Amino acid sequence: MKELLIDDERLDYLLAENLRIIQSPSVFSFSLDAVLLAKFAYLPLRAGKVVDLCAGNGAIPLFLSARTKAEITAVELQERLADMADRSIRYNNLEHQIRILNDDVIGIAAKIGYESYDTVTCNPPYFLAHEASEKNLKEHVAIARHEIHLTLEQAIQSASELLKQGGKAAFVHRPGRLLDIVTAMRANRIEPKRIQFVYPKEGKDANTLLIEGTKDGKPDLKILPPLYVYGPNGEYTEEVRLLLYGHNN
Amino acid sequence: MKELLIDDERLDYLLAENLRIIQSPSVFSFSLDAVLLAKFAYLPLRAGKVVDLCAGNGAIPLFLSARTKAEITAVELQERLADMADRSIRYNNLEHQIRILNDDVIGIAAKIGYESYDTVTCNPPYFLAHEASEKNLKEHVAIARHEIHLTLEQAIQSASELLKQGGKAAFVHRPGRLLDIVTAMRANRIEPKRIQFVYPKEGKDANTLLIEGTKDGKPDLKILPPLYVYGPNGEYTEEVRLLLYGHNN
Repeated sequence: MKELLIDDERLDYLLAENLRIIQSPSVFSFSLDAVLLAKFAYLPLRAGKVVDLCAGNGAIPLFLSARTKAEITAVELQERLADMADRSIRYNNLEHQIRILNDDVIGIAAKIGYESYDTVTCNPPYFLAHEASEKNLKEHVAIARHEIHLTLEQAIQSASELLKQGGKAAFVHRPGRLLDIVTAMRANRIEPKRIQFVYPKEGKDANTLLIEGTKDGKPDLKILPPLYVYGPNGEYTEEVRLLLYGHNN
Repeated sequence: MKELLIDDERLDYLLAENLRIIQSPSVFSFSLDAVLLAKFAYLPLRAGKVVDLCAGNGAIPLFLSARTKAEITAVELQERLADMADRSIRYNNLEHQIRILNDDVIGIAAKIGYESYDTVTCNPPYFLAHEASEKNLKEHVAIARHEIHLTLEQAIQSASELLKQGGKAAFVHRPGRLLDIVTAMRANRIEPKRIQFVYPKEGKDANTLLIEGTKDGKPDLKILPPLYVYGPNGEYTEEVRLLLYGHNN
């Protein structure tokens, strides 16, 4: 049996879900974006198949497992992150529901099935590849945060290939890429249906975008109520405390 | 001299600006959208030239005149509305600053100048033409509210033709048309830069979209803080009272 923790890894809590997750400050830690996306996405409640692309250390699949009985496939290119996710899945005894594939998101449908999935979630790399060189980032973090091995358009194409007609793809990204995302979604037959903007606090511009579309859906876009992360005194808002801790006090 | 008021017209207040406007319940009254757009748009403060397309009874040009010394050209296809706007402009002694043209928005740049304007505002017809037949609307209202004589794409094309490089076009529309608007803007060299969503109240989906783009601008989209119209007890919020009345009590 493998060791549970390697090097500087630690076993963190996903408090709201009574789950635990292996993280490493030097390799990768999930962010609030993963929590937000996992709560935002529509899921089949019972039967069904879900894929999480760019799964990192598995935070989104773990969160999703608390919301659905559907089978979850998690795809992560980086071996070290896929291995962390795999150990977390086993630690939580979720290997019957979640499988982690250490594989490339590009072309993944050819391996796991075209038009076979009800929901695809994806927290893709946020920054353009050319922005990476400016920063002296560790390799794992650079790949996870930058479009080095996967562009936004490639992630959306893979999502579309995986989805059944009527299936839903949900992404979290930066608002500055809104136009690129909606353009790529429509070009790949995913009609944007729900958008929610996340604001760091009242009076500030949005810094996160949640967007969901339906494969071959009809145009009918809703802009959901805004979500604020921090209150006036820098504390998490009630809504975010509920997402993170499962209770708001 | 023309009569000031015709038929069921009345002289309403634009309270925040100490201006008055001729309106008619049977022909056309401006909506909150006009107020929101007039406050949202960037304007040249002193020298400069501004166009308001689909000007209706002139609410937006009147509001804009309180914010800028720039020359304002208002374009309205419907003779009756253009005439109401003209009488309101004269009543407020603003004929030195605002000219109203009773003309078609389509092709207007050929008449008043290509690439000559700093800012274009437009509160275009909101509903698709085919939606009009379902409703037994009066003709003036139907034309003003539906894309009968002017599609969204045509309005955006005219705005682009009028704008100087670096000039700004601001539109108010329904959030459901967001993707059509941004697509048409980009197709007409207007890069979306600022979006603000307006929510009827907390917890509801947005029902109004304010969007501004820069002609030949670089991609750099900001999502502004949300604006709420009504508070929990159905009263206008402080922010909207300030827009409408010039004070918030």
